[in-house]
Amino acid sequence: MTTPLFPQVVFNADGLVPAIVQQAGTNEVLMLAWLDEEALRRTLTDRRVTYWSRSRGEYWRKGDTSGHTQMLVSASYDCDGDTILLVVEQTGAACHTGTRSCFDERALQIKEES
Amino acid sequence: MTTPLFPQVVFNADGLVPAIVQQAGTNEVLMLAWLDEEALRRTLTDRRVTYWSRSRGEYWRKGDTSGHTQMLVSASYDCDGDTILLVVEQTGAACHTGTRSCFDERALQIKEES
Repeated sequence: MTTPLFPQVVFNADGLVPAIVQQAGTNEVLMLAWLDEEALRRTLTDRRVTYWSRSRGEYWRKGDTSGHTQMLVSASYDCDGDTILLVVEQTGAACHTGTRSCFDERALQIKEES
Repeated sequence: MTTPLFPQVVFNADGLVPAIVQQAGTNEVLMLAWLDEEALRRTLTDRRVTYWSRSRGEYWRKGDTSGHTQMLVSASYDCDGDTILLVVEQTGAACHTGTRSCFDERALQIKEES
């Protein structure tokens, strides 16, 4: 077993940890995505955010296709080490639907009885 | 099978969805926690945030023990429905360690070779 690069971080049974992504300055929450140890290493080394895409099963350096890059400003982990917070400079839309944040205009309500 | 209360939300194999919790106004990210359908129903109905505690296996209405309540301001879901964003009015410390945010003073770095 190799020494973990991030002894503070608790990866789940799939080897992943969720990351909350937040715009520097405004503190807007842009998205949540998942990283494995290698994605986290690349993110901290390159200072450009790289995820592990669970749907595509591959590394995904944000913006390589879309141009909507995320430059890393700072990274931290939470009190029990099972969530990461990435503060970034987001170019353009963070969301693949074209909105700035993945949470834009999606208010949650209890479904009414019909 | 009963009709889901939140057809927009994709719960995982354990019936849970992660929620990013953010302070209204400042947009500070306070914590990440998990909800099942019933916790989400209680949260939207009571306007006080209730989680499902994975470690204790029970519902956990934030602040009932600590006094550090979270009053719900708004809730939204993300583009693929598998993450919730809860904007709250946090009383006191969100983190059980006594810090305002669970991410306070926990900068993430790659472990140096020793």
